Amino acid sequence: MTDVAAREGLTFPALPAGLDTPRVVVDLARVEANIGRLQGAMDARSIAVRPHAKTHKSLRIAGMQVAAGARGITVGTLGEAEVFAAAGFDDLFLAYPIWADGPKAARLRALRDAVPRFAVGVESAGAAKRLGAAVAESARPLEVLVEIDPGNRRTGVATPNGAVEVARAAQGAGLVIRGVFSHGGHAYHLDAAGSAGADEVRTLGAAADALRSAGLEVSVVSAGSTPTMITSSTGQVNEQRAGTSVYGDRQQWVLGAMPPEGCAVAVAATVVSVHDERLVLDAGAKALTKDRAEFLAGHGAIVSYPELVIERVNDYHGIVAAPPDAARPRLGEVVAIIPNHVCPVIDLVDSVIVVAADGSLEEWPVDARGRNG
Amino acid sequence: MTDVAAREGLTFPALPAGLDTPRVVVDLARVEANIGRLQGAMDARSIAVRPHAKTHKSLRIAGMQVAAGARGITVGTLGEAEVFAAAGFDDLFLAYPIWADGPKAARLRALRDAVPRFAVGVESAGAAKRLGAAVAESARPLEVLVEIDPGNRRTGVATPNGAVEVARAAQGAGLVIRGVFSHGGHAYHLDAAGSAGADEVRTLGAAADALRSAGLEVSVVSAGSTPTMITSSTGQVNEQRAGTSVYGDRQQWVLGAMPPEGCAVAVAATVVSVHDERLVLDAGAKALTKDRAEFLAGHGAIVSYPELVIERVNDYHGIVAAPPDAARPRLGEVVAIIPNHVCPVIDLVDSVIVVAADGSLEEWPVDARGRNG
Repeated sequence: MTDVAAREGLTFPALPAGLDTPRVVVDLARVEANIGRLQGAMDARSIAVRPHAKTHKSLRIAGMQVAAGARGITVGTLGEAEVFAAAGFDDLFLAYPIWADGPKAARLRALRDAVPRFAVGVESAGAAKRLGAAVAESARPLEVLVEIDPGNRRTGVATPNGAVEVARAAQGAGLVIRGVFSHGGHAYHLDAAGSAGADEVRTLGAAADALRSAGLEVSVVSAGSTPTMITSSTGQVNEQRAGTSVYGDRQQWVLGAMPPEGCAVAVAATVVSVHDERLVLDAGAKALTKDRAEFLAGHGAIVSYPELVIERVNDYHGIVAAPPDAARPRLGEVVAIIPNHVCPVIDLVDSVIVVAADGSLEEWPVDARGRNG
Repeated sequence: MTDVAAREGLTFPALPAGLDTPRVVVDLARVEANIGRLQGAMDARSIAVRPHAKTHKSLRIAGMQVAAGARGITVGTLGEAEVFAAAGFDDLFLAYPIWADGPKAARLRALRDAVPRFAVGVESAGAAKRLGAAVAESARPLEVLVEIDPGNRRTGVATPNGAVEVARAAQGAGLVIRGVFSHGGHAYHLDAAGSAGADEVRTLGAAADALRSAGLEVSVVSAGSTPTMITSSTGQVNEQRAGTSVYGDRQQWVLGAMPPEGCAVAVAATVVSVHDERLVLDAGAKALTKDRAEFLAGHGAIVSYPELVIERVNDYHGIVAAPPDAARPRLGEVVAIIPNHVCPVIDLVDSVIVVAADGSLEEWPVDARGRNG
C-alpha cells in the first residue's frame, strides 16, 4: 500500500461546531459498529472476546464491550487494573510480565483479593517466583497465563519447552496455570501483516500442546493484536484480546485490519497559520504524538484534504506541507485528523468529546489516563 | 557527533529505592544549577529571562525560576496560561499565534482581565483582527509580539515588511505592540545548531528595525529555544525564552546546548524480561514517547549501560538490544533513562518524584499537564 493510499479514503462525520481545539472527538456510532464487528466475528467462531482497555482507558467503553458479549477485559498495567477493578469489573487479565516487587507486590495482592477473576502474564521463572511471593498471603491463588513469543521478539518464551519450564516454575511458586497467551505485534508491518496471525496460531498451539503433554491444564489459549484479530482466531485459540479495533486508526486501516469507516476517533485542530507552501495546525506532538509507522507519511491523516501531509510536529504545532494546487483549509478552519496510532493519543487527554448518532455531545473521562505503571 | 557519543557520558544520581516504575525522577540540585546557569549567562548580557513553562508545567519550578531572576514566564497554550495565572503569576507571554474564536476568545479575555502583564503572539492580520475583537470589552488593551520566522519555517512572518504589515493590522485592531519574537527551532539539527542563533539575531534585528522605521515602538526583542540560548542572545535581543534548559535532555546534550550533568530528569524503569540478545523495560511509548531526533539512536539513553539501545517502544514495553558482551542489568533491576526530549515526557505524568540534595523525596504535581489547548 502506498503513502497516498494511506491518506486517501478516510472519512469522519462532520465535527460539532465550537470545539476548543485540539480536542479528541469520538463518534459513538462507529465505536458501536467496531465493537459489534469484533464480537460478531468471534461469536461466529465460538471465541471469547477480552478486549484490551489500553486503547480507550474508559469505563463506559469497557462497559459497552462487556454488554456486547466480552468475557472480561485485558489491561496492560496495575494502574489500569485498579481503575477497572474499582468500578466493579470482575474479570481482568493483566497481559504483562510484571515484576512484583516493592509497591507493585502490595498492589498485586490487593487486586487479587478484590477482583473475583484476575490473572496475570508470566514469562520467566524469576517473575513467577516474585508473583507467588507477592500473593502468598492472599485468600485465593493467583492465576497466570504463560506468555509465548509468536515471532514478535518482545516478551514471551520462545519455545514450547521454555513454556513448560516457566509453567512448572509458576506451579512451584503456588500459582495456578490458566493457559497461554501471545501478542502478534510483528503484524504491525506491511510485509508481515498476513503471516503474523498464522505464526500466532502455530506457536500458541504448540505451547498449549507442550503444556498438556507435561500434564498441565490449559483452559485458555489467548491471542492478541488488532491486525491479527481474524487470522489468529483459528486453531486452538479460544480467546481474543484485540485493543485498537474499538477505536480504529490510520495505521490499522492501512494494515488492512479495519475498514476506513472503522476510524472512530479524530483530533480536531484549528489552522493557526497559513503560508505559501505550508499551514500550521494547533495539534502538535502533545496532541498527535510522534507515533508514525515507517509506511505512513506524516503524523496523521487530515480528513477532506488528502493531499496535505503533516510533515513535522513540535509540542503545539503541526506543520503541514501544502502543495500550491492542493485543496487547503483556510486560516481559522477546524479540521479532523485521523491519528496514526490512537492508543497513545488517548493517553494524552483527560476527556474526550463523544458524539452520538443524534448529534448530541457528551464529555467522557479517560478514566485510566496516565495509569501506565 | 556520533550515535555512540549520544549515549556515552550521561550520568544521573543514584535512584531512590522502592520506586514504583515507570516513574519520572527530577534531581533538584541539577535543576537549580540549570536555572542558575541560564540566569547567570543572561544577567551577564543584561538580557531578561522568560523561561518557557511547557517543559516543566510546574508551579514550583516556575516559582524557582522567577525567584532566580526571571522577568516572567512563557507559555504555549491558553490552558497553561490559566494554570499559572490562577497561581498568581503576574507576567505571562503566550508565545503562540492563537486563533481567538469561540471558547478561546472568552478564555483570552478572562486572562487579559486577570493577569497584570499579559501578551500573546501574532503573525497574521487575520489572527490580529480576532484578538482585537476578543478583548474589545476588556478594561486594558492586549499587548502583542509579532512573530518572526528566523528560518525555522513553522510560524512567523518571513520578511521585515511582513512584520510591519502585521503590526499595523494589530494596531488597527486595537492591540498594543510590545515587540517581536522568534523561535529558532531549526537549531534542533546537528548541521544547523551553530548557525540558527545567528539567523535569529539577524532576522529579529531586521524586523525590529523595520517596525521602528515605520514609527512603531519595539520594547521587547525576544529569542527562544534552548540550543540557541547563548548564540541568539546578542544584537538587539533583550529577552530569552529557553524552555528545555531547566530540565535538559539527551537531545540538548548531543546538540551541545547543555553539559551532560545538565540532564536533571530521568525515567526510572524496571527490567521485566531478559532474553539472549534483548531486554524489555516497563517504560514504553506511554513513558518515553516516540520522540527521537534522527541523530539519536534509540528511545532514550540508559545510564550506566551505554552500549544498550532502546530499539523499539510499544505502549508499555521498551525493547532493548543488548549485545552479548555488553554490560546489562539483571531481571528486576531498576535503571535510569535520560529521555530524548523531556517536554512531551513530562506531559504524560500527573506528578514527578523530586530528589533533593540531602536525598529526601517529594512528589510534585505537573500542574499544567494535559493543558495543551
